[in-house]
Amino acid sequence: MSILDKTITSIKPIDWSLEPAIRAHLDQLTKPPKSLGRLEDLATRYCLITNTVNPILGKKKILTFAGDHGVAQEGVSAFPKEVTPQMVRNMLAGGAAVNVLANHVGAEVSVIDIGVDDPLKDAPDLIRRKVKSGTDNIAKGPAMSLAEATQAVEIGIELAQSAAQDGATLIGTGEMGIANTTPSSALFAALLPCPVEDISGRGTGIDDAGLIKKIQVIKQSLKVNQDQLSHPLSALAAVGGLEIAGICGLCLGAASRRIPVVVDGFISSAGALTACRLCPDVRDYLFFSHRSEEAGHATFLRLFGVEPILDLKMRLGEGTGAALAMNIIEAAVKIYNQMATFASAGVSDKA
Amino acid sequence: MSILDKTITSIKPIDWSLEPAIRAHLDQLTKPPKSLGRLEDLATRYCLITNTVNPILGKKKILTFAGDHGVAQEGVSAFPKEVTPQMVRNMLAGGAAVNVLANHVGAEVSVIDIGVDDPLKDAPDLIRRKVKSGTDNIAKGPAMSLAEATQAVEIGIELAQSAAQDGATLIGTGEMGIANTTPSSALFAALLPCPVEDISGRGTGIDDAGLIKKIQVIKQSLKVNQDQLSHPLSALAAVGGLEIAGICGLCLGAASRRIPVVVDGFISSAGALTACRLCPDVRDYLFFSHRSEEAGHATFLRLFGVEPILDLKMRLGEGTGAALAMNIIEAAVKIYNQMATFASAGVSDKA
Repeated sequence: MSILDKTITSIKPIDWSLEPAIRAHLDQLTKPPKSLGRLEDLATRYCLITNTVNPILGKKKILTFAGDHGVAQEGVSAFPKEVTPQMVRNMLAGGAAVNVLANHVGAEVSVIDIGVDDPLKDAPDLIRRKVKSGTDNIAKGPAMSLAEATQAVEIGIELAQSAAQDGATLIGTGEMGIANTTPSSALFAALLPCPVEDISGRGTGIDDAGLIKKIQVIKQSLKVNQDQLSHPLSALAAVGGLEIAGICGLCLGAASRRIPVVVDGFISSAGALTACRLCPDVRDYLFFSHRSEEAGHATFLRLFGVEPILDLKMRLGEGTGAALAMNIIEAAVKIYNQMATFASAGVSDKA
Repeated sequence: MSILDKTITSIKPIDWSLEPAIRAHLDQLTKPPKSLGRLEDLATRYCLITNTVNPILGKKKILTFAGDHGVAQEGVSAFPKEVTPQMVRNMLAGGAAVNVLANHVGAEVSVIDIGVDDPLKDAPDLIRRKVKSGTDNIAKGPAMSLAEATQAVEIGIELAQSAAQDGATLIGTGEMGIANTTPSSALFAALLPCPVEDISGRGTGIDDAGLIKKIQVIKQSLKVNQDQLSHPLSALAAVGGLEIAGICGLCLGAASRRIPVVVDGFISSAGALTACRLCPDVRDYLFFSHRSEEAGHATFLRLFGVEPILDLKMRLGEGTGAALAMNIIEAAVKIYNQMATFASAGVSDKA
């Protein structure tokens, strides 16, 4: 059995039987019942995922996967392709938005080269797992072979396992890859499914003409690869990306270890959706961090039926939304663990 | 001139001429322009309020004002009145939700007795500024005299000044007072103005019959006090509360010192609105932390035309929403101060 198949088999559904005990504890805390709203829901899910009424939220880790995209040559992005390795170096030097926000919330950031079209020499802290130097152009054929897609997913699984071994209790997803909203939209259109127009946006900031062209390119990619779209893994290989595959694997690997995953924005959601299509039980292990301003993200969230934690009109990726949402989840777990009860504080309960 | 009048006179409108320079700096950071959405807006406003392109966000302070309400005797709350002093003690002992969340985000909490109907003996860290032992029943007459309301507002001003002296760079509002959604709704109805039904909710959790009764009580209070509602200060005295007056003063005092204020939820918004009615320039110094689940808060936010930072279905008060939002504002300022620029990181700008 492959690592991928073994991981999928090992993922167990959440045991909801603990929920009444968790909610009963929350109702004993010195506040009107349910008055902390989503914080109480987040704490409850954190307990359920980790299968305990005594949750521990310790080390927080964001894994940012970087990869290039052959489809960039179609002119679907506002930024040139060399920005992918440049931003990888920026992240390793601590200058990117994800570094600032991860530091702010006390999370570690790891940057993984899973498919950057650059040797990235002399980049000491880089995690080197390059499957290939960027995907092929999805407008002309598959992004990668099924074997390459499987390898990239298994890299995500492996990194989730190492994070678990390293004591991570909350894992955030992140990505960097010029043009990667294009394969993400294609993958959403195939796996949700939904019309391309409803799931496509301006990415890093293309204009109206660019958006029209991008939608044509996505439609073309779905047509060229149409025979591959009925299975999530072959769809991922056909129209996806290496960093998206890595994120898919990260979700699977974390779920198999009962570690909650905080899904970043649009591209990370494409990876998370692929993981859920491969193994529906993964869904309950995921927190969706924020509603991205990238136009298609609201469509995904609605069709998938999830309400994100934050809505700050962000559309940067990297793991920035995940970082901020991790902080809210940690706040929720602290509420559960640290507040006084009506009895311990000598406060009268509801009349 | 009274302290209140002097403070109002000293509040200056924000100087928006700095905005282009602030936005230009944000556009130099290694991200697509505007891609951090509201974080960029929050950083910009923080700079404008503190009137600098080099913002410093250091000490964060939440001031939680506690007061009792004569109208509690009308049975408008799900909790008994003795909970006010009990919760004050809980906050001083660090067991309340606001303590947990303030610790989480690195903010200090100060608890002020501005009108609790209890001597609160042996409460060492309590800030003692009791104006009177709870307001009078607004369903039967004014909550307090104009002199008492002025005194309570000036206590808020004084505490903002001390916080400034103490190095606070971001001030959060909070409150505790059984039955205090009732005077808040009355004050909103008078000052927005709006129909009582649109601004009234279940507070700590009254049932349908309780809500109908509460609306009747609020309407009665507006009728009994109708001659006092045309001026914000006399409306505050007539149908407000001591902790609401304290929050009003805190907003005024902070604005006069150019310190940004993070307004908590429903009750804090009533205090903030009163401050804005007394001095319209205060508005630009306020961040609205979250959309409370208390039914009327959405009405206030819509009519006042502000979009809060968070929407986590919370309805607890105390300063809990302010604490979480302070963390997002701090994240925004760190983005502004700590990210690399395209030039410094050697990243190519938009094509």
